[in-house]
Amino acid sequence: MAVGLLESETLAPIAGIRLGTVAAGIRRQNRRDLVTLVCEPGTVAAGVFTQNQFAAAPVLVAREHLARVSPRALVINTGYANAGTGSAGYEDARRVCVALAAQLGCDPQEVLPFSTGVIGERLPVDRIVAALPRCVDMLAEDGWTEAARGIMTTDTIAKGTSRRVEIEGAVITVTGIAKGAGMIHPNMATMLAFVATDARVSGEALHACVRAAADASFNRITIDGDTSTNDACLLLATGRAGPVIDVPQGSAYRALANAVREVCVELAQAIVRDAEGVTKFITLEIVNGDSEAECLAVGRTIGTSPLVKTAFFASDPNWGRILAAIGRAPVGPLDPDRVTIDINDVRVFERGAVSAHYREEQGAAAMRASEVVVRIDLARGSATATVWTSDLSHDYVRINAEYRS
Amino acid sequence: MAVGLLESETLAPIAGIRLGTVAAGIRRQNRRDLVTLVCEPGTVAAGVFTQNQFAAAPVLVAREHLARVSPRALVINTGYANAGTGSAGYEDARRVCVALAAQLGCDPQEVLPFSTGVIGERLPVDRIVAALPRCVDMLAEDGWTEAARGIMTTDTIAKGTSRRVEIEGAVITVTGIAKGAGMIHPNMATMLAFVATDARVSGEALHACVRAAADASFNRITIDGDTSTNDACLLLATGRAGPVIDVPQGSAYRALANAVREVCVELAQAIVRDAEGVTKFITLEIVNGDSEAECLAVGRTIGTSPLVKTAFFASDPNWGRILAAIGRAPVGPLDPDRVTIDINDVRVFERGAVSAHYREEQGAAAMRASEVVVRIDLARGSATATVWTSDLSHDYVRINAEYRS
Repeated sequence: MAVGLLESETLAPIAGIRLGTVAAGIRRQNRRDLVTLVCEPGTVAAGVFTQNQFAAAPVLVAREHLARVSPRALVINTGYANAGTGSAGYEDARRVCVALAAQLGCDPQEVLPFSTGVIGERLPVDRIVAALPRCVDMLAEDGWTEAARGIMTTDTIAKGTSRRVEIEGAVITVTGIAKGAGMIHPNMATMLAFVATDARVSGEALHACVRAAADASFNRITIDGDTSTNDACLLLATGRAGPVIDVPQGSAYRALANAVREVCVELAQAIVRDAEGVTKFITLEIVNGDSEAECLAVGRTIGTSPLVKTAFFASDPNWGRILAAIGRAPVGPLDPDRVTIDINDVRVFERGAVSAHYREEQGAAAMRASEVVVRIDLARGSATATVWTSDLSHDYVRINAEYRS
Repeated sequence: MAVGLLESETLAPIAGIRLGTVAAGIRRQNRRDLVTLVCEPGTVAAGVFTQNQFAAAPVLVAREHLARVSPRALVINTGYANAGTGSAGYEDARRVCVALAAQLGCDPQEVLPFSTGVIGERLPVDRIVAALPRCVDMLAEDGWTEAARGIMTTDTIAKGTSRRVEIEGAVITVTGIAKGAGMIHPNMATMLAFVATDARVSGEALHACVRAAADASFNRITIDGDTSTNDACLLLATGRAGPVIDVPQGSAYRALANAVREVCVELAQAIVRDAEGVTKFITLEIVNGDSEAECLAVGRTIGTSPLVKTAFFASDPNWGRILAAIGRAPVGPLDPDRVTIDINDVRVFERGAVSAHYREEQGAAAMRASEVVVRIDLARGSATATVWTSDLSHDYVRINAEYRS
């Protein structure tokens, strides 16, 4: 059950973008598993992709296509990730692009493919190609909510959000959808996110915008420390509203970047709230570090510790495990006597030991909440970073031990 | 249930070392939880300790004492780790040393304290001090097996082993005991290991010996990626047998170092075989890397991946998860088309995709074994490293969600 997450409200359409979603029977019958997104000519795109060295075939193709031309369409399937499929998988991804391009009357390079699901098995291209005409028939500006459902894998709830922001008198809209669930860690995760805006943005500014937004959102979450072969976050700008934003600076850029970041943070948090087997949403605030990188390293070390995560699952205020995780984080020398730990505003650790005022009942009460904020003061500087993570439950093991069966 | 692990046979005594084990009621009643080890004057000692920045009080005290004088005694308790206990914890560890020194008629600095158990709670010094006379009364050269039982925490089986090696006509004995179970990762783990030999070794040679042995054993295992605040591996040499080994080179040194390394590897593997919730013992052989460090990085990334470990638990030959873990390891550029993966001699992955000859039934059969060897060929160089790890089971979560309750 997702923690503190409701089905997204109606997502705001973006002028110049239409989406279609169908059940193509890719891996299971009667399940929405194929999404197309078509954008009008003139749309600018920028993306960030997995850093995994075994990047999936669709990632390789999407990167290549995106480097050459502006996209006219995206095609996204669940069921199979088309990763670890070698040159045959690369051809499969290309064939899907060719088929959609033929439907739309554009160049195959103007199509970007995205896949998520089981690694190592071939994509059933014929079933995808056969379903594309139906998918194109369904294209509609209000197709975002259906598309959010269509990209789900082990997600239990569709993830999407919209923001409106006024820039120089014009209302700009940003809408994004994402899927997550497992294999979630910085530099991306098994996550796909598609965000679009009607703003008028240059490629350079859009690139800066998507990098900054991903860094502040998807790269600050961790569920199990794994980085998938297929992660991608794509940002599209259709150029229908507002002033021209040419460079990544100035108030108009900052207003847009802020809205995109807000959308990405909400989507990233939604991914954690709906993590596999999650029972708690945990915010790790690392403050007064020497650098942001140091704060992030501490947050990620805590956020990936199975011992810390099982303690959260058990609502056990076992701060010793948090302490042990901080102590092994790859950061400069800490002064154990100055570091403090607070759990939901309960001071737990200070001066090298449990706080004199701390009572175990307070810690237990703080840990029973479904949303827990752990604040670590490193007492070394003035940098700060926040990492969001989930607990590690019986259901995480069950889901991941059964995923393919 | 431990995988492929039997209760150790009678452990060989080491001339000049006596051990005593009692139930001191430290955290639970009627449980062996206090061990003393006393060595004759002239014993040389060398140790490696946790790299955790929140090193426990006994680690701080043991390091200090060891740097000043040769030890006459060790005192080891389970139940409480005396970590995260600040200056009071430091004084507690010192008080235990003072009490044992009074019993033995030696200097408190000649006593090294070791603790394992719950972090963050004070050591019940009075109960320990009250039990020390009984512990000293029991001192015996054949006390190793009882001591191995006395240092267990969530271990299900006592871990110990002995080796005999002939050096220049003399028989040298090496005996070691260890405890492990959880929070196990390189640079040490929640693990304590005590190894002793009757060899005549200088401090310099013994230091080199313990570092090399720990690096080849305890630093090559990972259960959950956590490094504890209390880890220590201590090597004692009583100087009763064989030639003088002055420097860390030459055939006598190599013969001793080899025996110590074998003892440590067997103890380290025993820790993994008895990991919390373990159902499989997994050997990750990384070959043909650019450097040993690179091979280790790949092995540790695979060995700490919850997705890989849950797949092992499920006996699911989900090599895509192994591939994804390799791909996110912090190593130089890999050529996906040249990397190969074998599971128990079944070639699974080659040329960027599933092997043409591979059948899922083969992989499933290989994964059903309780001992699985995964061999990754990085096809980049000639370096090699092996990492041992366990799977991630329902019981791991159960044990760690219940540990304090």
